[in-house]
Amino acid sequence: MAVYTQVDEDELEQFLAGYDLGSVMSFKGIAEGVENTNYLLHTERGYFILTLYEKRVAAADLPFFVALMEHLAARGINCPQPVKNRKGAALGELAGRPAMIVTYLEGVWLRRPHVQHCMALGRAMAELHEAGANFKLTRENALGLAGWKKLAPVAEPRADEVAPGLAQLIHDELGYLEKNWPRALPAGVIHADLFPDNVFFLGEKLSGLIDFYFACNDLLVYDIAISLNSWCFEIDGSFNVTKSQALFSGYNSVRKLERGEVESLPLLARGASLRILLTRTIDWLNVPPGALVRPKDPQEYLKKLRFHRRIDHARDYGLAA
Amino acid sequence: MAVYTQVDEDELEQFLAGYDLGSVMSFKGIAEGVENTNYLLHTERGYFILTLYEKRVAAADLPFFVALMEHLAARGINCPQPVKNRKGAALGELAGRPAMIVTYLEGVWLRRPHVQHCMALGRAMAELHEAGANFKLTRENALGLAGWKKLAPVAEPRADEVAPGLAQLIHDELGYLEKNWPRALPAGVIHADLFPDNVFFLGEKLSGLIDFYFACNDLLVYDIAISLNSWCFEIDGSFNVTKSQALFSGYNSVRKLERGEVESLPLLARGASLRILLTRTIDWLNVPPGALVRPKDPQEYLKKLRFHRRIDHARDYGLAA
Repeated sequence: MAVYTQVDEDELEQFLAGYDLGSVMSFKGIAEGVENTNYLLHTERGYFILTLYEKRVAAADLPFFVALMEHLAARGINCPQPVKNRKGAALGELAGRPAMIVTYLEGVWLRRPHVQHCMALGRAMAELHEAGANFKLTRENALGLAGWKKLAPVAEPRADEVAPGLAQLIHDELGYLEKNWPRALPAGVIHADLFPDNVFFLGEKLSGLIDFYFACNDLLVYDIAISLNSWCFEIDGSFNVTKSQALFSGYNSVRKLERGEVESLPLLARGASLRILLTRTIDWLNVPPGALVRPKDPQEYLKKLRFHRRIDHARDYGLAA
Repeated sequence: MAVYTQVDEDELEQFLAGYDLGSVMSFKGIAEGVENTNYLLHTERGYFILTLYEKRVAAADLPFFVALMEHLAARGINCPQPVKNRKGAALGELAGRPAMIVTYLEGVWLRRPHVQHCMALGRAMAELHEAGANFKLTRENALGLAGWKKLAPVAEPRADEVAPGLAQLIHDELGYLEKNWPRALPAGVIHADLFPDNVFFLGEKLSGLIDFYFACNDLLVYDIAISLNSWCFEIDGSFNVTKSQALFSGYNSVRKLERGEVESLPLLARGASLRILLTRTIDWLNVPPGALVRPKDPQEYLKKLRFHRRIDHARDYGLAA
């Protein structure tokens, strides 16, 4: 939950004067989204989300995200659409932050997704990968292997405060991943953060995807690895093979995974675990005084990493290679 | 800002099955409201606010609040209306908390209210007092003089960590207020928390009042004292007499303040300052580890209390007695 930046009514009015949205009917901070400040904005023209981009999002990356959301929507992916101001620009500035208004997407994110939701997610992810195939802009994955190498020395000095031996484990894991990371698999635009809170459902039907602020170019199957971690483990830490089978099955029904992609999954799942483990460890160890956000527990992803280290074969996830 | 209690989709669905609101279109935690957890709930029937009552609201008081909101709305006060379930009950239970759905009120609260907004607030407050005159239920002000006497010993032991000498000041102030508190002024139902974030505007027009969870029976002019503090001081701590004149003038245009009420204002404003100073001091000194809420600064109300201690006469607030 997060409203990092307060916007007063005079700033808001001045900002909205640049848009053709009519007058404001309501304006409420939303307690969702970890990286940015989000307001639900209701005007005479309807409901919108106003996002202020906080320090973790690089302003230079915003045009990539804007163009991607437009590109995907034009190809049938239901995602928020940037609303342009009278000058035709989607990006502006508000309260000293880069700011954007996007359309409001109906749907509810699921705290406890079931098997059929994992299937729907797999389909939507593959559709996203296909729709992104001819997208012209590119963005490197700032939280890929190269990024982890930068984060590891930040996390390691105090990592053992999170769990004894964690610094060594991070060090070893990074060495292993670097040595074995696959280079020759299908790549393209991935969402890179398809956690349940970024996937909306209306009843059983997947209604849309949000929060493209980690989207980048990387191995397509890495997107699956991220969702394998965030959708297919139960709260008690057990891995639900029925859910992972549903996720793969949904994905394969749109875009058939190659043999090499399937075989790489245990390794990529370790990478996807390390990525979250690193950022959560750093956040956990660096809570500013008076913080408004309770950091998420790194232990969850330490357990997931350990689980994947014991996996030899993608068939252990319920997937025949 | 606050979402203290997470509600998962199964719990929500089960809860809503008792209502005639159709299926859920979206459900978002709102980063507003300090005492309770609020969600914006969008269903096939429209937009609503779903509130879970956290520990500071006594479940036994909820029927008073429900009946009051209905009573006031029936008399033309624009405030949220409790939505009844199929059994005719407004109150239910969700995620282990008392819970209620109320209608969604259009409007924006003002971070920086201007003079004309203070005038509109005064009018609305007097209308509220008149509309509440024949309300049958009663609720003692848990944060009135008797309540402060209970809070003072909680705040005092560590109060000097907030400001040197604060413990003594609280002690002295409480003694003074107890000795001089007026007993024979007009009393009735008051809102008791008409801070700017509980008053909505559409453009210049006051569109409604929310958050009746401090409402109680007390001196009517005490409501003015609370808003004098929260609407008429500038951010730099200076008192804006034009705003207080507008607040009084708006109030008087609906219900003429009696001479005794006006004369009591400096004293009541000290009480209203002490009330907030006490709760903020306690909150400030008791931030739980990992808290999601940044406590508000008690210093602001210490300054206001000191300001009112230097006031001899209501005319110093711009009001002729």
